[in-house]
Amino acid sequence: MLILDGKNASQSIKDSLKNEVNDLIAKNIKPGLGIILVGERKDSHTYVRMKKNACKEVNINNFDVILPENIDESTLLININEMNQNSEIHGILVQLPLPAHINEEKILSQVSLIKDVDGFHPENIGKLALKRLENICVPCTPDGCLKILDFYDIEISGKHCIIVGRSNIVGMPLSLLLLHRNATVTICHSRTKDLQEQVKRADIIFAACGRTQMIKKNWVKEGAVVVDIGINAIDDATKKSGYRLVGDVDFAEVKEVASAITPVPGGIGPMTIAMLLEHTVKACKRQCL
Amino acid sequence: MLILDGKNASQSIKDSLKNEVNDLIAKNIKPGLGIILVGERKDSHTYVRMKKNACKEVNINNFDVILPENIDESTLLININEMNQNSEIHGILVQLPLPAHINEEKILSQVSLIKDVDGFHPENIGKLALKRLENICVPCTPDGCLKILDFYDIEISGKHCIIVGRSNIVGMPLSLLLLHRNATVTICHSRTKDLQEQVKRADIIFAACGRTQMIKKNWVKEGAVVVDIGINAIDDATKKSGYRLVGDVDFAEVKEVASAITPVPGGIGPMTIAMLLEHTVKACKRQCL
Repeated sequence: MLILDGKNASQSIKDSLKNEVNDLIAKNIKPGLGIILVGERKDSHTYVRMKKNACKEVNINNFDVILPENIDESTLLININEMNQNSEIHGILVQLPLPAHINEEKILSQVSLIKDVDGFHPENIGKLALKRLENICVPCTPDGCLKILDFYDIEISGKHCIIVGRSNIVGMPLSLLLLHRNATVTICHSRTKDLQEQVKRADIIFAACGRTQMIKKNWVKEGAVVVDIGINAIDDATKKSGYRLVGDVDFAEVKEVASAITPVPGGIGPMTIAMLLEHTVKACKRQCL
Repeated sequence: MLILDGKNASQSIKDSLKNEVNDLIAKNIKPGLGIILVGERKDSHTYVRMKKNACKEVNINNFDVILPENIDESTLLININEMNQNSEIHGILVQLPLPAHINEEKILSQVSLIKDVDGFHPENIGKLALKRLENICVPCTPDGCLKILDFYDIEISGKHCIIVGRSNIVGMPLSLLLLHRNATVTICHSRTKDLQEQVKRADIIFAACGRTQMIKKNWVKEGAVVVDIGINAIDDATKKSGYRLVGDVDFAEVKEVASAITPVPGGIGPMTIAMLLEHTVKACKRQCL
């Protein structure tokens, strides 16, 4: 059984990005990422801090704006437009989720197409669906799922992939990416009947349903590959914090039947951040070279 | 076993559209559809003729432009922009396929978003993927597949739907629509292994692979619903034309095990045309009311 180590895979990606960025800096070009964070959510602040640290590691400039929870849509749009116009910023990340009073789609569709390193602009999603991936960025988490499989030379083409969860951020774009890679794709969700039976048929399982350790050993075909995209906090008195993070897969059980599995933490999380850096460098090259 | 009669279902849709259009005409609004047809393809000319006849049936105005096979992209774009600006035209249909020297995506993304009654603009496809269906038109053939099931009160939610074929025109948008309707969706294609086995698991089968009568009786679960989107010409000496049209499903065989099945012709074909009319009326109302 192989542990698909996202720290390892993402480090290798970051190492090669660092070289790319140094080449750019030698040409007087420094990639820049603009981050917009609204409100006080602890998890969002943690993610943004991790993204900023990762930028530092590979020499990407950071421009971040932290806005109050009660900000109105038009002020938020002004901030996005400023970043759209700032030539030192090549990629823009709006940390999700936004507060409930903000129309997320409206905000995301205001990000300049060429700076949309998160790939959430409707036109970029449309191009992904239409299999026109040449000049777009695709959403980071699904991209990270594919890249960790690539890193470990796990074939996707022709495989039966099942995705549990149909979110706009993970499940839906992942299904489109997997189709593009010639997988047979099944998308399951909360309304799926016989979920266990569906999952058990798959060669590769992508768990993105946000249900703590839902996928058990007897859900998984012997030898299947398991990619766990969930991040859930559960109580753990042995930890100083009082909790620890686990995925949507019961790792301890499932690793007994899987041929390969991503851990949580240390699996898709670091890959997502590496993809954000990769997309920012790509966007910078498209805009500056 | 129930034959899902597309002529019947589409007639009922057209009857109610005719009433809607008459109400609009009473307000001095007449819905208009612009059709752009490039080249000499016999099948394309047949489809356009059928669409024009259907427009007449429900009192939709027709504006059609027929352009030579060797037209250049910029002239084609001028024609589209004229239709974009013509306030008597509420929907624009570019008959596909376009000649090989034309960049289809570029052309389709030039159609005004609000007049895109075929739903092929990347931003409209993106909104479909993002489950934002409020103000868009979705592609006509997948829409017709859903509406014929609705007409016969066949439940989609919770069902395991399989789509054979992943084209941008049918398979891909159909998968997104079915997800939106809470189906569990599997997408198969030419690279799928064990295709027969995959198909046999499904509650509802959508055949859109363009392979003549490929789906046989022993591919279909007893009681499954079968929607045949294929249109293939096969030799038939008993016909004056020397050929007849069949689908991607072996109708004669499969009707023995299916609980319901669409015929070819007379199934999804007329539904596709009815959806084009429905989208044109919808677009007209959005623009004029």
